[in-house]
Amino acid sequence: MEQPKVGVVMGSDSDFQVVKKAIKVLKDMDITVEARVISAHRTPEKAEKFAKEARNNGFDVIIAAAGKAAHLPGILAAFTTVPVIGIPIKSSALDGMDALLSIAQMPPGIPVATVGIDGAQNAGLLAAQILSLKYTEIVDKLEDFRAAMAAEVEKKDAKIREEAADI
Amino acid sequence: MEQPKVGVVMGSDSDFQVVKKAIKVLKDMDITVEARVISAHRTPEKAEKFAKEARNNGFDVIIAAAGKAAHLPGILAAFTTVPVIGIPIKSSALDGMDALLSIAQMPPGIPVATVGIDGAQNAGLLAAQILSLKYTEIVDKLEDFRAAMAAEVEKKDAKIREEAADI
Amino acid sequence: MEQPKVGVVMGSDSDFQVVKKAIKVLKDMDITVEARVISAHRTPEKAEKFAKEARNNGFDVIIAAAGKAAHLPGILAAFTTVPVIGIPIKSSALDGMDALLSIAQMPPGIPVATVGIDGAQNAGLLAAQILSLKYTEIVDKLEDFRAAMAAEVEKKDAKIREEAADI
Amino acid sequence: MEQPKVGVVMGSDSDFQVVKKAIKVLKDMDITVEARVISAHRTPEKAEKFAKEARNNGFDVIIAAAGKAAHLPGILAAFTTVPVIGIPIKSSALDGMDALLSIAQMPPGIPVATVGIDGAQNAGLLAAQILSLKYTEIVDKLEDFRAAMAAEVEKKDAKIREEAADI
Amino acid sequence: MEQPKVGVVMGSDSDFQVVKKAIKVLKDMDITVEARVISAHRTPEKAEKFAKEARNNGFDVIIAAAGKAAHLPGILAAFTTVPVIGIPIKSSALDGMDALLSIAQMPPGIPVATVGIDGAQNAGLLAAQILSLKYTEIVDKLEDFRAAMAAEVEKKDAKIREEAADI
Amino acid sequence: MEQPKVGVVMGSDSDFQVVKKAIKVLKDMDITVEARVISAHRTPEKAEKFAKEARNNGFDVIIAAAGKAAHLPGILAAFTTVPVIGIPIKSSALDGMDALLSIAQMPPGIPVATVGIDGAQNAGLLAAQILSLKYTEIVDKLEDFRAAMAAEVEKKDAKIREEAADI
Amino acid sequence: MEQPKVGVVMGSDSDFQVVKKAIKVLKDMDITVEARVISAHRTPEKAEKFAKEARNNGFDVIIAAAGKAAHLPGILAAFTTVPVIGIPIKSSALDGMDALLSIAQMPPGIPVATVGIDGAQNAGLLAAQILSLKYTEIVDKLEDFRAAMAAEVEKKDAKIREEAADI
Amino acid sequence: MEQPKVGVVMGSDSDFQVVKKAIKVLKDMDITVEARVISAHRTPEKAEKFAKEARNNGFDVIIAAAGKAAHLPGILAAFTTVPVIGIPIKSSALDGMDALLSIAQMPPGIPVATVGIDGAQNAGLLAAQILSLKYTEIVDKLEDFRAAMAAEVEKKDAKIREEAADI
Repeated sequence: MEQPKVGVVMGSDSDFQVVKKAIKVLKDMDITVEARVISAHRTPEKAEKFAKEARNNGFDVIIAAAGKAAHLPGILAAFTTVPVIGIPIKSSALDGMDALLSIAQMPPGIPVATVGIDGAQNAGLLAAQILSLKYTEIVDKLEDFRAAMAAEVEKKDAKIREEAADI
Repeated sequence: MEQPKVGVVMGSDSDFQVVKKAIKVLKDMDITVEARVISAHRTPEKAEKFAKEARNNGFDVIIAAAGKAAHLPGILAAFTTVPVIGIPIKSSALDGMDALLSIAQMPPGIPVATVGIDGAQNAGLLAAQILSLKYTEIVDKLEDFRAAMAAEVEKKDAKIREEAADI
Repeated sequence: MEQPKVGVVMGSDSDFQVVKKAIKVLKDMDITVEARVISAHRTPEKAEKFAKEARNNGFDVIIAAAGKAAHLPGILAAFTTVPVIGIPIKSSALDGMDALLSIAQMPPGIPVATVGIDGAQNAGLLAAQILSLKYTEIVDKLEDFRAAMAAEVEKKDAKIREEAADI
Repeated sequence: MEQPKVGVVMGSDSDFQVVKKAIKVLKDMDITVEARVISAHRTPEKAEKFAKEARNNGFDVIIAAAGKAAHLPGILAAFTTVPVIGIPIKSSALDGMDALLSIAQMPPGIPVATVGIDGAQNAGLLAAQILSLKYTEIVDKLEDFRAAMAAEVEKKDAKIREEAADI
Repeated sequence: MEQPKVGVVMGSDSDFQVVKKAIKVLKDMDITVEARVISAHRTPEKAEKFAKEARNNGFDVIIAAAGKAAHLPGILAAFTTVPVIGIPIKSSALDGMDALLSIAQMPPGIPVATVGIDGAQNAGLLAAQILSLKYTEIVDKLEDFRAAMAAEVEKKDAKIREEAADI
Repeated sequence: MEQPKVGVVMGSDSDFQVVKKAIKVLKDMDITVEARVISAHRTPEKAEKFAKEARNNGFDVIIAAAGKAAHLPGILAAFTTVPVIGIPIKSSALDGMDALLSIAQMPPGIPVATVGIDGAQNAGLLAAQILSLKYTEIVDKLEDFRAAMAAEVEKKDAKIREEAADI
Repeated sequence: MEQPKVGVVMGSDSDFQVVKKAIKVLKDMDITVEARVISAHRTPEKAEKFAKEARNNGFDVIIAAAGKAAHLPGILAAFTTVPVIGIPIKSSALDGMDALLSIAQMPPGIPVATVGIDGAQNAGLLAAQILSLKYTEIVDKLEDFRAAMAAEVEKKDAKIREEAADI
Repeated sequence: MEQPKVGVVMGSDSDFQVVKKAIKVLKDMDITVEARVISAHRTPEKAEKFAKEARNNGFDVIIAAAGKAAHLPGILAAFTTVPVIGIPIKSSALDGMDALLSIAQMPPGIPVATVGIDGAQNAGLLAAQILSLKYTEIVDKLEDFRAAMAAEVEKKDAKIREEAADI
């Protein structure tokens, strides 16, 4: 029986602190994750191979994180029709705006599903939402996640009401 | 038997000239499309209702296009766990940069799959790639689409080689 | 007899350090404040309910603070005709420029009164100025506030004249 | 008996094509409008005089439109506690981004309620919403305006559904 | 006999750490400086008065520093034909880009001589260059300043050559 | 007897349509203008020679206009202590933002007095204001110019009041 | 005997109108040019093959032009150590700023020599300058080109001096 | 017998911490480096002299680093046909965006090969790639460098796979 599986690729191991939020949210929903460091520029053939074989290797979705010129998500997307989610990573100079544009502004024909700068948790959730089409048991997990988030907001609402009363 | 179905929502009918490229690419792959004009601000309850009922109404993916503050994709995403793809529409003042940021920079918990500014064709293709997880017959259609694109590039390559010879 | 009342809503409790300057300036002018954490995306129905009932619940003005995609002020504004003031919150990646555009660039029909990035004190003052139309006793308080500010500038002027003399 | 009155000031007569949408929406709600061309830089004393006397002259709200460095709204705001709404005007070079920042990024103490670039209709509506605190008959007019907008969206929704069917 | 005199005005005393570089360079060239804290928004009448009387009070040049919406240089310039040099101050949110645009993008008719963000030393030097038209003894001082700068660069050149040899 | 003289240098003859507004305003005030096309990059030695000899050749002020990388004003400023006013020219790609930054963000030691994008008239007026220190007869001409501008605004004010009455 | 040879690759035939300026300047210097349309995303294997074989196929330099996400230059650079020059192409939405950042902000290890937006002529000249290291006869051609440019500026200088005299 | 030689010029010694990565990578490939501090604005004649004599002094490539207005690379390029590589340096206010535009947006005729912000290592590698045309022994060194980089990525890939397993 098929299992949901997501490839989480990052261009540099320095992206791991951000990217692991995507891995966490996926694992919490019992989705198999394979995490990789593959560079579109330093190991381009690995990138090509990973993407070309992705569907056959059982990947339902690929998440790719990269900073600066951030070609990784687009290059993976060029070699597969498995949906690719791109995470623009904030780096030292331009606050991730360079990566956001490099990932979002893909040419016609090869889409990348872009999330916000450093938006790894959302990348994980988006992958889970996509997987929920095929693996319907994930729908409930997503609903539970949202209910927990809402409950968290409620708690903070109560706390802030109190704190504001003291101003 | 289930059919792939995509909701294509735009915030204004003036977005239709851009958005119809998404509809075209989906219909060309025999995917059912329901096109709607719903405004996150002018008809917010319609937006809420559409999103809340999306999964039950058989929508596998929602595509939402909006310009300027561009809240539509995010608001739909808040009311459903069906994947939402956002198309930032270029409008008169800021070239679509406002819409790109408003759609991509979603807060943790509620992802939107953002494509490039006016990237409607890519939104359609991304929807098809997502659908291909569940409706595997779409995989071949996607491969055919890519092969046709590559063939088109080949033809242009031949043409430009000739034109360049005359410079 | 009617009392001036302002709702101060923030999308996340992490915005509170900024937002409390709005609360402070309002309370200093004896304006009733109800502070809330409501998320346009994580608790969208709460947001809708709060805005829909705002006028009936005696809110004269709503102040809403949000970062990144910052849909909160616009969504509240969609559900009420009570004036909504939006505070773009600076967050980690784009210095609040994303929030500023997401709040200011509202589509025709649903205005949000946008103040500067992290401009919570000004949001409070703007609310007080709006309230002064109906509650005319606030006019004097506003004049006093401005006189105090001017006096503060005078003091600094004297101090800097001295410091500059030593250069 | 008091009448609602709004001052609509523009820095240059070339702004009139944009600004008149504010005037129209106000007049349609039976709100008195006084339209003026006053330059913060070329006629600064007029600007000062207009703002200083605004409250005594019965202005409930001031709308000020300006492009480029766009000091007009801020300068008027410095001389009155009547709420000032600023409209950033798109001009030739920077798409109105300069005006948006010059108007929105006011220093602490002197707020301007900023709307979107060329957002004159929203400026008018925001003024009407502010006036509705004091002149409660405007509440119904605002509700009617919103209902008409929603109906307009419905019509476009129907039209686009048909057009999309033909793709 | 006339003495060169420059007014150095800042919108807030928090600008002083930057602005004092302007004062220093002017004093080093024996130019009289009057340093002031005057706010275009909090003490607008002081600003007007200072500018209107500037020529009669013997000011040859005015330097004005401000952050964010940064109206101070433009407002002073509106009330005098004495040359006004504007220093955009970097503040917390937008790195001074807001101030740069607010100062540089003045409308036709009222120029401000804008220097770079936090460019206080250059503002002082520009003032000295302007003064050198009338007070020709400043020409030599400017030449000396440049010669000293060039000598400084030479020293650093020698140092870096050595350091680079060790890499 | 000395005459006021301004050098107006542009990097390309295509800048002339913008730059001639500077020439016009100077000639209208009986200030001698020498207009030149000199490129910082294509004729760098001419640029150097022009700037080095500027003071001896009787130039009181230099105005330099350039687009894109816009090095011309800075390079002229490096070779003279005569005040240099820089006009950033809007060109095809980046709306003049590149030129604005290249001109305004000069390093410590070598100031350029930057005006707004395509702000040629203001460059001319700023030159005249600078010249008014030494050639005091220009003060009255500047006051006349401002009075004429103010009168023009008054006329437009009257016209718009009428037009607005018809809305 | 070896001949200088440059590959000029564009991502789309729509880039040809810009790119042909690079071809022209190279051919005018008797440098062999091979012009190609190869897409990093639509024909990624062609891109890889072209770059991998570039040095063996006698290419001394590669020029690559692309708009939007503009991965082409970076991807070619990943597969060869032949110098790659990148031309960011201005496209409809973001004026080429997206392409400029996507090309310039390459990660450590894989450089691309970026020229300005639509800077095809400069790309050609930069290629010629690089070739001049090995093919020293190109040095004179470059000097001639510069002399011709300087002469052109001289002519325009004379023309503008006359035109300015008539203002 | 000729030796490869690169001039590495920086506008300020404060750029050295960034620039030395370029020097390191070049020296590691046995390429002679001459490191200099030369300011386009503070020592413009040195800059001119350095560039004019560069080819005769045996420089094959010049690397020039500068921040803010960053004229140094362009000015050196104006005086030589030796290829000039420009490194935009991140400085305090605008994150290096000013320097990037000032260096990349060169006018037609005088190219600068721009690398990313603070991209000194890439500047060194680009210089080596250019030198490899003439000094073919560098080709192997470049291939070795790339192989080492790829091996490094492989190691990080293995490490991250393990770390991800523990999430």
